[in-house]
Amino acid sequence: MAKEKELVFGHKNPDTDAVVAAISYSHYQNELGFNTEAVALGEPNEETKFVFDKFDYKYPRVISAANGEVKKVMLVDHNESQQSLDDIADLEVTHVVDHHRIANFTTDLPLYYRAEPLGCTSTILWKMYNEQKLEIPGNLAGLMASAIISDTLLLKSPTTTDQDKAALKSLAETAGIDYESYGLDMLKAGTNLDSKSTKELIDMDAKSFEMNGKNVRIAQVNTVDVDDTLKRESEFVKEITSENKDNNYSLFVLLITNILTSDTTGLIIGEDDAVAKFEKALDTKVSDNKAALPGVVSRKKQVVPPLNEAF
Amino acid sequence: MAKEKELVFGHKNPDTDAVVAAISYSHYQNELGFNTEAVALGEPNEETKFVFDKFDYKYPRVISAANGEVKKVMLVDHNESQQSLDDIADLEVTHVVDHHRIANFTTDLPLYYRAEPLGCTSTILWKMYNEQKLEIPGNLAGLMASAIISDTLLLKSPTTTDQDKAALKSLAETAGIDYESYGLDMLKAGTNLDSKSTKELIDMDAKSFEMNGKNVRIAQVNTVDVDDTLKRESEFVKEITSENKDNNYSLFVLLITNILTSDTTGLIIGEDDAVAKFEKALDTKVSDNKAALPGVVSRKKQVVPPLNEAF
Repeated sequence: MAKEKELVFGHKNPDTDAVVAAISYSHYQNELGFNTEAVALGEPNEETKFVFDKFDYKYPRVISAANGEVKKVMLVDHNESQQSLDDIADLEVTHVVDHHRIANFTTDLPLYYRAEPLGCTSTILWKMYNEQKLEIPGNLAGLMASAIISDTLLLKSPTTTDQDKAALKSLAETAGIDYESYGLDMLKAGTNLDSKSTKELIDMDAKSFEMNGKNVRIAQVNTVDVDDTLKRESEFVKEITSENKDNNYSLFVLLITNILTSDTTGLIIGEDDAVAKFEKALDTKVSDNKAALPGVVSRKKQVVPPLNEAF
Repeated sequence: MAKEKELVFGHKNPDTDAVVAAISYSHYQNELGFNTEAVALGEPNEETKFVFDKFDYKYPRVISAANGEVKKVMLVDHNESQQSLDDIADLEVTHVVDHHRIANFTTDLPLYYRAEPLGCTSTILWKMYNEQKLEIPGNLAGLMASAIISDTLLLKSPTTTDQDKAALKSLAETAGIDYESYGLDMLKAGTNLDSKSTKELIDMDAKSFEMNGKNVRIAQVNTVDVDDTLKRESEFVKEITSENKDNNYSLFVLLITNILTSDTTGLIIGEDDAVAKFEKALDTKVSDNKAALPGVVSRKKQVVPPLNEAF
């Protein structure tokens, strides 16, 4: 008897890992007898487009709600419901593979949940393929290597673990790429922001967090030239102010990260006491909406935990 | 450099799996280089005493709060904070191994989380030992086999999976026991309720659940003679009514389960609309506080999900 179909997907505003992990977990589960389809909760960003072009892979179907198409779903690279399908509350989550904190996530039934504090979901999936002795096709290995490069900024982010390094080396070999030179090209492709509107930039890699009842939005853009990106500063401020109002965000943090120097300039806009909490949490000063965040590259490891603590 | 010490524990009102899983996960993690101590969040019940006597194992130290002894902890066989240490909110949960739904559980940081929808936490741990090719000592195998027998009512509960069966067979072999005859002796030892006060009985294997803002308490006692247990009915009613008042429970469900016939009689006491929700959820009629629940043996699989849905 055919298994009931389930959808597999990563978070909204997908980055490379969110989409790639959905594809590789769907492939993995189908090999083990499940009936799944990988979908994406948004269009590809510049970096992800570069990756799918490079390995000649078709980008998944894009949806924002299941709309009754399935009853059961599998999540990768996220668990917080505000980062998921719009109608996630009506669906049964049967499986999760993730590398984030757990929050705003509740199930009625026991489920399969695998989280590990590693740099990338695709690293966990690489381990799972190995545990089941399942082969990873060359172009899928290329996608998974790209996801690790993306999440760890070529193994330079403080979230990087020895297991991420081992996974990247092994996957790059399977894919037949020199990950260092390919990785730099890939990251640079992701910093080509000229074609993006200001609204697109602050939405591209943005996640919402509920912190002690307050809505906090944290977006990140990677660049090789922060000053160049900040030429749009007044547009950013205007757009973020309007977003905060429309979405009831108490705080909006835009992290403008230089991937070559691993430093970040933050654009911090929100309620006065929320901005004060940010200053205290990140041990910095917000002046003219901007804050220097030297050495900060990881939203997950360096921004969310202290901010959550402060709220 | 020595690793920072962490405590490992199962839920409050521990049953055999809660305590055994803490011991076996602590042993596993120490073999892998962690520095952990297994503790229990309550005294052993009659069944658990029988198990620890049989395999000549020392029951862990009992605590109800960490009180600053450690900063980090590992949870087994639960995740909901109301089932955990009193000061769990002040502690960092670094690892979870569990087989329940996820609810009322939030972390600030990424963590290791492994849940599988199997009959017993000890089955997951048996898989983990195998994956790491770690040997399970004979008396620990006996404890783990006992936990599986306890959680699955000798493989008869609807929560039982093929993996639980395989784990029990393997562990029983390592421990050198005939699990069928041993299992029946063990379950019967757990039904020796004569020495218990009524208050002890309704607290022994009880768990609290938050359902849509309401506090719901579900307790279970196993017996070989439901009528005999119900000789205390008026005492149960009095004690539960007082518990509901003291703890602001909207609903208290006492499941009196006959382990030989796999049927349950429920004693249902609470607010009128909560009792009505129970009737609807379990498709039964509460009359004189009692409800027949034929075929019901699993709180987790047969009571919590429909009740949660109804609330």
